[in-house]
Amino acid sequence: MGKGLPQQTAGPLCEKEEIMNQTLRKDAETIVRAAIAAARPDEAVGRALADFECPGRLFLIAVGKAAWRMADAALAVVKSPVEEGIIITKYGHAKGAPDGIRCYEAGHPVPDENGFRATAEALALTENLRPSDTVLFLLSGGGSALFEQPLIPAEDLRDITGQLLACGADIVETNTIRKRLSAVKGGRFAAHCAPARVEAVILSDIVGDPLDMIASGPVTKDSSTCAQAAEIVRKYGLRLGEDARDCLARELPKEAENVHVRVIGSVRELCRAAAAECRRLGYETVLLSDGLDCEAREAGRFLASVLHTHAGEGRKLAFLAGGETVVHLTGNGLGGRNQELALAAAPGLAGLSNAALISVGSDGTDGPTDAAGGYADGDTCGALAECGLSVDAVLKENDAYHALEKTGGLIKTGATGTNVNDVTVGLLG
Amino acid sequence: MGKGLPQQTAGPLCEKEEIMNQTLRKDAETIVRAAIAAARPDEAVGRALADFECPGRLFLIAVGKAAWRMADAALAVVKSPVEEGIIITKYGHAKGAPDGIRCYEAGHPVPDENGFRATAEALALTENLRPSDTVLFLLSGGGSALFEQPLIPAEDLRDITGQLLACGADIVETNTIRKRLSAVKGGRFAAHCAPARVEAVILSDIVGDPLDMIASGPVTKDSSTCAQAAEIVRKYGLRLGEDARDCLARELPKEAENVHVRVIGSVRELCRAAAAECRRLGYETVLLSDGLDCEAREAGRFLASVLHTHAGEGRKLAFLAGGETVVHLTGNGLGGRNQELALAAAPGLAGLSNAALISVGSDGTDGPTDAAGGYADGDTCGALAECGLSVDAVLKENDAYHALEKTGGLIKTGATGTNVNDVTVGLLG
Repeated sequence: MGKGLPQQTAGPLCEKEEIMNQTLRKDAETIVRAAIAAARPDEAVGRALADFECPGRLFLIAVGKAAWRMADAALAVVKSPVEEGIIITKYGHAKGAPDGIRCYEAGHPVPDENGFRATAEALALTENLRPSDTVLFLLSGGGSALFEQPLIPAEDLRDITGQLLACGADIVETNTIRKRLSAVKGGRFAAHCAPARVEAVILSDIVGDPLDMIASGPVTKDSSTCAQAAEIVRKYGLRLGEDARDCLARELPKEAENVHVRVIGSVRELCRAAAAECRRLGYETVLLSDGLDCEAREAGRFLASVLHTHAGEGRKLAFLAGGETVVHLTGNGLGGRNQELALAAAPGLAGLSNAALISVGSDGTDGPTDAAGGYADGDTCGALAECGLSVDAVLKENDAYHALEKTGGLIKTGATGTNVNDVTVGLLG
Repeated sequence: MGKGLPQQTAGPLCEKEEIMNQTLRKDAETIVRAAIAAARPDEAVGRALADFECPGRLFLIAVGKAAWRMADAALAVVKSPVEEGIIITKYGHAKGAPDGIRCYEAGHPVPDENGFRATAEALALTENLRPSDTVLFLLSGGGSALFEQPLIPAEDLRDITGQLLACGADIVETNTIRKRLSAVKGGRFAAHCAPARVEAVILSDIVGDPLDMIASGPVTKDSSTCAQAAEIVRKYGLRLGEDARDCLARELPKEAENVHVRVIGSVRELCRAAAAECRRLGYETVLLSDGLDCEAREAGRFLASVLHTHAGEGRKLAFLAGGETVVHLTGNGLGGRNQELALAAAPGLAGLSNAALISVGSDGTDGPTDAAGGYADGDTCGALAECGLSVDAVLKENDAYHALEKTGGLIKTGATGTNVNDVTVGLLG
């Protein structure tokens, strides 16, 4: 099946090759499913809190789209009784209030009065705590809208947000302004809880884990300055009321010494779990990157060349990469970044009987499709050619879904209940 | 210098960081220079023939653009006296005939009468050899035109070549036809030398080393068939004279048992030499790929994310990749694929004080510039920003040369006398 061999030898695969590919396919799916399972919020919260201890009273505040599941998992493992607790999540994301916990649903991505009221209750609950108290703070994506107490009238906040969007301010500039207009963002919630200890478990879905970006960092010390805020106002000519001007002149907490943070469910954890499963299956494992952010199809080509380079060494090898690649649309087909990545690897793997690549989104959804991602091996190109398809043409149409459907290369997991970016695994068997 | 730190701390580098970056820069240049030196034809020929032994008479045939330098190096290391020898190289590439060796210059890329005459002399010299004789055959790029004896009139050959070009036949199809029209290609030169032994040293400049592609494989057994040749004639409706029809009906050698091949100067050897130098300098070394063929800038982003992922581990690590990336022009600037690759890595390295990336073309020429490639580290983006430049904008203009000129990131080696693709080295110090 190698390049340059005569065409007449390219017939059906011999039995040994078929068995090898079936093994690789099975291993590839086993690895990504194990990684996704380990990254599920309940699993991850359980692991993170396994050694959790609490000397005095314990209060629970859970905020974000995964708040209910995180709280549910925490209550199952934490041995100390919870004094009081509040869950604030998105509409439709709660499954009833656990014993002794108040559970609120609120607006996301646009904050609403329900969110403001629930946040006010959380602030009241964590007011005047003692040094021996602990606030178990469970934070997930969406917290920025769900956990909010504006320091200026909601109308003014909307106006300023609109101005920032319209003027083209970047996300760092926007946050530098927005945090200062909130009673809980930019480390202020942690300061509010002091002198109590804050044990934060943060479910990350942002590559590289910039903690001050997740829900605008309620328990993360701030690194921006009033001078920078003033410069942004000047740069874009923002029109501000007096309340807002006062807020921008006030510094945010520069320390958060009462806070202990555990980051869970990050893409790094996803990669770590995938690596553990690779090793369990007997693969020497190389983590390449947990912050992949290049073009999906080029990542596929790169990884195929890595597999091709080592294919002749006779080793069982696994190469891992996590992150979030990008796709630039040039066609009208159906697909997603993981499907494009896998498909683009196919030409580089063509003819190799011992190589395979799988790439999936941990949330089980890749692009606007019902697949979590894609799989390719040394037979994929040949199978496509039999259907009259070339990888280049398919990618030009962004139609990886239909191509992989034909080669049996679609990976479907259904919704997984987590969202910590993508994981790609290249295997040599 | 980390993301998210306040701007006011981003001033001049502290002394320790400056020293670190100077060390990385020095190491990076040392590594690529050592790799290029090891891949030079004379060095590589010397290594390949270190254990060369010759029981009987020794004849030397050197063909290709590097023929003179390869022959010169071989004569310096081979202990047995050379009975007779012929060098065939491109106009301007010979530096006088060594003792007892005939040296010819001929047309490339278009073959001419000088090439045909020199090839005829080489065939005469290697006619009727004995089993105890050895032909030392030194082959490099360009041999396809320089070493040729057409089996049909030159005019017919030109016509068929023109038809193959015009009909859109691919390189494999073209070669399947062309080899059969030649007395030396497709393994026929090796068959001609039999029963003598042929010791071939092949200088490869094609990613993946498909030996039958280098100079159309004079000593490489052929894997195509007459049936395939006939199918290509039918597919494209090629018009052939009777001579040509006869040629296409004759099989090429399917074995080349009297041939022993040493491939030198391949990109794999370039990577191996770079890896050896990395290890000598104390880096744990990971060869990622020796067949990189994706978009240059995306390879840079991928490699930057690899370095970023491992930057916090406190290890001295080197990641290597060799191959030939591609650039799609969107602007009118100056640059080359290695310069684009290095520059595209800069944003991913920004703020890292212990990471650097270098990428160079082994021939010392990257694109239409006087640089061999580029270098980037954690300071590159900041230095560009001070000049009012962004990496994205520079890449859009394909103007990496001028950007790297400003950051001191151009690597200049001058012409190196070799051409075995590119090598990229990412370092963590």
